[in-house]
Amino acid sequence: MSDEGVTAVLLLSCPDQKGLVAAVSDFLYRNDGNIIHADQHTDQEESIFLQRVEWELAGSAIAREEIGGAFQPIAERFGMTWSLDFSDYVPRIALFASRLPHCLYDLLARWRMGEFRAEVPLVVSNHADLRPIAEDFGVAFHSFSITPETKVAQEERLLAMLEEERIDLIVLARYMQVLGERFVAQYRNRIINIHHSFLPAFAGGRPYHLAHERGVKIIGATAHYVTPELDEGPIIEQDVARVSHRDSVADLIRKGRDLEKVVLARAVDLHLRRRILVYGNKTVVFD
Amino acid sequence: MSDEGVTAVLLLSCPDQKGLVAAVSDFLYRNDGNIIHADQHTDQEESIFLQRVEWELAGSAIAREEIGGAFQPIAERFGMTWSLDFSDYVPRIALFASRLPHCLYDLLARWRMGEFRAEVPLVVSNHADLRPIAEDFGVAFHSFSITPETKVAQEERLLAMLEEERIDLIVLARYMQVLGERFVAQYRNRIINIHHSFLPAFAGGRPYHLAHERGVKIIGATAHYVTPELDEGPIIEQDVARVSHRDSVADLIRKGRDLEKVVLARAVDLHLRRRILVYGNKTVVFD
Amino acid sequence: MSDEGVTAVLLLSCPDQKGLVAAVSDFLYRNDGNIIHADQHTDQEESIFLQRVEWELAGSAIAREEIGGAFQPIAERFGMTWSLDFSDYVPRIALFASRLPHCLYDLLARWRMGEFRAEVPLVVSNHADLRPIAEDFGVAFHSFSITPETKVAQEERLLAMLEEERIDLIVLARYMQVLGERFVAQYRNRIINIHHSFLPAFAGGRPYHLAHERGVKIIGATAHYVTPELDEGPIIEQDVARVSHRDSVADLIRKGRDLEKVVLARAVDLHLRRRILVYGNKTVVFD
Amino acid sequence: MSDEGVTAVLLLSCPDQKGLVAAVSDFLYRNDGNIIHADQHTDQEESIFLQRVEWELAGSAIAREEIGGAFQPIAERFGMTWSLDFSDYVPRIALFASRLPHCLYDLLARWRMGEFRAEVPLVVSNHADLRPIAEDFGVAFHSFSITPETKVAQEERLLAMLEEERIDLIVLARYMQVLGERFVAQYRNRIINIHHSFLPAFAGGRPYHLAHERGVKIIGATAHYVTPELDEGPIIEQDVARVSHRDSVADLIRKGRDLEKVVLARAVDLHLRRRILVYGNKTVVFD
Repeated sequence: MSDEGVTAVLLLSCPDQKGLVAAVSDFLYRNDGNIIHADQHTDQEESIFLQRVEWELAGSAIAREEIGGAFQPIAERFGMTWSLDFSDYVPRIALFASRLPHCLYDLLARWRMGEFRAEVPLVVSNHADLRPIAEDFGVAFHSFSITPETKVAQEERLLAMLEEERIDLIVLARYMQVLGERFVAQYRNRIINIHHSFLPAFAGGRPYHLAHERGVKIIGATAHYVTPELDEGPIIEQDVARVSHRDSVADLIRKGRDLEKVVLARAVDLHLRRRILVYGNKTVVFD
Repeated sequence: MSDEGVTAVLLLSCPDQKGLVAAVSDFLYRNDGNIIHADQHTDQEESIFLQRVEWELAGSAIAREEIGGAFQPIAERFGMTWSLDFSDYVPRIALFASRLPHCLYDLLARWRMGEFRAEVPLVVSNHADLRPIAEDFGVAFHSFSITPETKVAQEERLLAMLEEERIDLIVLARYMQVLGERFVAQYRNRIINIHHSFLPAFAGGRPYHLAHERGVKIIGATAHYVTPELDEGPIIEQDVARVSHRDSVADLIRKGRDLEKVVLARAVDLHLRRRILVYGNKTVVFD
Repeated sequence: MSDEGVTAVLLLSCPDQKGLVAAVSDFLYRNDGNIIHADQHTDQEESIFLQRVEWELAGSAIAREEIGGAFQPIAERFGMTWSLDFSDYVPRIALFASRLPHCLYDLLARWRMGEFRAEVPLVVSNHADLRPIAEDFGVAFHSFSITPETKVAQEERLLAMLEEERIDLIVLARYMQVLGERFVAQYRNRIINIHHSFLPAFAGGRPYHLAHERGVKIIGATAHYVTPELDEGPIIEQDVARVSHRDSVADLIRKGRDLEKVVLARAVDLHLRRRILVYGNKTVVFD
Repeated sequence: MSDEGVTAVLLLSCPDQKGLVAAVSDFLYRNDGNIIHADQHTDQEESIFLQRVEWELAGSAIAREEIGGAFQPIAERFGMTWSLDFSDYVPRIALFASRLPHCLYDLLARWRMGEFRAEVPLVVSNHADLRPIAEDFGVAFHSFSITPETKVAQEERLLAMLEEERIDLIVLARYMQVLGERFVAQYRNRIINIHHSFLPAFAGGRPYHLAHERGVKIIGATAHYVTPELDEGPIIEQDVARVSHRDSVADLIRKGRDLEKVVLARAVDLHLRRRILVYGNKTVVFD
């Protein structure tokens, strides 16, 4: 693999302590890497330090396969949790959807237009309705009908397929099934869901109906990582739109669709560009 | 009273039915009033019709004191709930605050600059801290210390004072006491509160702390009419601001202050200009 | 044609005068139509009255083909400009694009998902690049290469084709050619363009580069009807997104794409639902 | 002066080069300062590196008066433009206003409530109208009537007074006079103006009238540093509000007031907290 145009991304977090920044920047300096993005954050209350650094491999003093080993002593010294990724790795995404097509369509079109640097080898659904859309885009479509009785077994089958397809990221594009605990544990911080409300308001089903009933003047959408607790995972991105008494539930659904699409796509983009660090039940988004 | 420059505002609601709009507009046409604002809304689900009409008194065929009587037969025919107001009436506002001054300051400054057509004869507080601000603006300041034991008696005294001062509207400018049921009933749809979150998210106390803990990417503020159920009244106006992981609780409070001020001021302004109709637990805002 | 579920939409404007609203609502009342949406606006400065009324045909006292004739006397009496449309008419849209696919893709996907009640018989482009997208959606693709020398002749050919296809609305989905005066005149208030800036800031080409150079903190997109003066037509819809010093021109372009898609789609939707009245160089949007 | 609770803020910019970050963080590490905020930005196109670091003085290895000297060699090595400030220094602000009181009132109230860590020793105006407001807040008020003939002389007198008062920051709170070139040069990047439009749209006078005429759907406000070219200085902050055909010019002015107040206050706050770096005609805002 050539290193031309390739960048390395280092994401790390650890207890805040003196000398941290100096140690990392000294490492990069000796590394001779041209830094093109660096951002950091200290959570004063939790005393946690989080950092993202991205630098060009070309011109770097050490080979890409040796960076991790060279960094390991620093990581150990400061007790870091860290990851190292290279921009020429192409992540593999599985899109999950149910019956509503708008998020699926939007993600597939963005992918086709080259907005996402990723592969999308499969679409999974608990219904058959969206098969034609997946096939229009040349993506394999797998429907897994799920009932309370079959759920465990089906999720096992699903997990096996995802593993075989070497899936890095699962995107729930208005997938209306709650994933089991074991499933979620397998893809910790690697399942992104779009919830059609401004969480924590209107968690659960039918948020637009509840929003209409409550008479809110603004609706929202929330992209978050999935955890075993429904709608409680770390929030990645949110956005809102103004509504009025003139808007029926159908209008809220219509206006909400655009929010959902954009918020979910932004979250996927941030994840793929390695811009997100999860700590506790929160995210740091280095944008 | 001269009618020059004065407008009449008719606000009405009733079960939706044919002939309604024709009857009202025919009334106004015969009335010979020059309509300067008209807006209406039909809630299809509830089958409720709501309307606001504002017209110039000058040139109107009937005297202002006869409009109500002339309209009464139409109102009865359609089963309307309605109100009629004239723009030269100057409503009297009581501002309630506790210790945080920003909303109080903002409202008093707006009033002083002539943004509100109203009188502000008194500021009420359960603390003494804000007395100097009220006095700077030449407004009487009354502190009512409230404990669980004194609450009922104090609210009775307060009600008596408000009645004596002929108060039309109570604005809770970050007033941190829950008003009793009897008090609220007395000023139904005439008490506006600002809640420092995007309701229904983070109802109750310490919303900024909760928002920070949940890791939301957007915070909000909500102005609503007060009902006996805390933070559950009809929403008048909401607004939001973007936040990030960089924002501490103190930053949320700082950014939230500006939201609170603006959202509360907008709600007061809409109320004073007779732009709001409450029905069920919702508002129609004719802006 | 059955009238079940069909609505009639009346859009009108005229010099403001007394009796107008009474006359229209009386007409509808006698018409016996169940009004499901009514909105009106008086431009006080220009003394212009504008109104939109939508009612159900089913149960109406007069047949749809007689409504126009019955309304004509009222229109004449008040000097109205007016239009009458029925919701079961399916407008025909031509999409124009150049090389950037995102707006084209978005509109075609929305159309396919049933968000727009319309037919899309053809995509027109001055390049061949987007042919595969049109064909994926089963829409005919016509490329018209345009040079200063061929422009007049090509636009004549284009006009002939549009006429033959009975096109009601042209949507410029990032079409980078300026349309000739004759062309624009033919489709007055029926060509919608998306401009990739918050007009009137950064009119003309390369707005994201200019925005970046100027160091703005917010970018925008503007949908407007096309007039002979470039980027000067009546604005239908605008929206904005926050940016920072961290955003390169490429980031502005990326963030701007989502604005462009949503703003253009909203404008098309408003047009198709007959929610827009153009007067002077402005729009009234009855949403 | 005690160092307890005091922070040092280092703002620097220089040509981007390797070893920069390592050198600065190594300096701070040796310095033994507890970093509470660090942010940096590389403008790839201009190859400029910009950084802000804030650390606690208490516990630092070198005394505050020696930090500058100790940093100087690093600054020279990398060709840095830099500044060092301490959070216990209280900047002195002069507020300039003309006839409109809302921004002046808002800034004075924020100052009084302790939102700004600053002194406000004087208000300057080219009219006498706002004298009572300044005096209510116990701030000296100076009116300088300015005509084309007296402008140069008056600005000289004004400069002398500002110097005598050791003014650090001038805030133009809807001050409607254009400042002369010599005046501006004296307070380079230390004069903040609020312009009542979304620049660069509607530069110059009467932006709300122009916005109304153009029929925009969103209005804005822009806070920027003043340069000799009117409305062309580096933008610090912008915000927008949605408007519609229902809004008259008076409504735009009313809605715009709230934007102006908040946007100006945010810019002043960012400046006072040393969050802004100006380079070229842009700002980096480290928030």
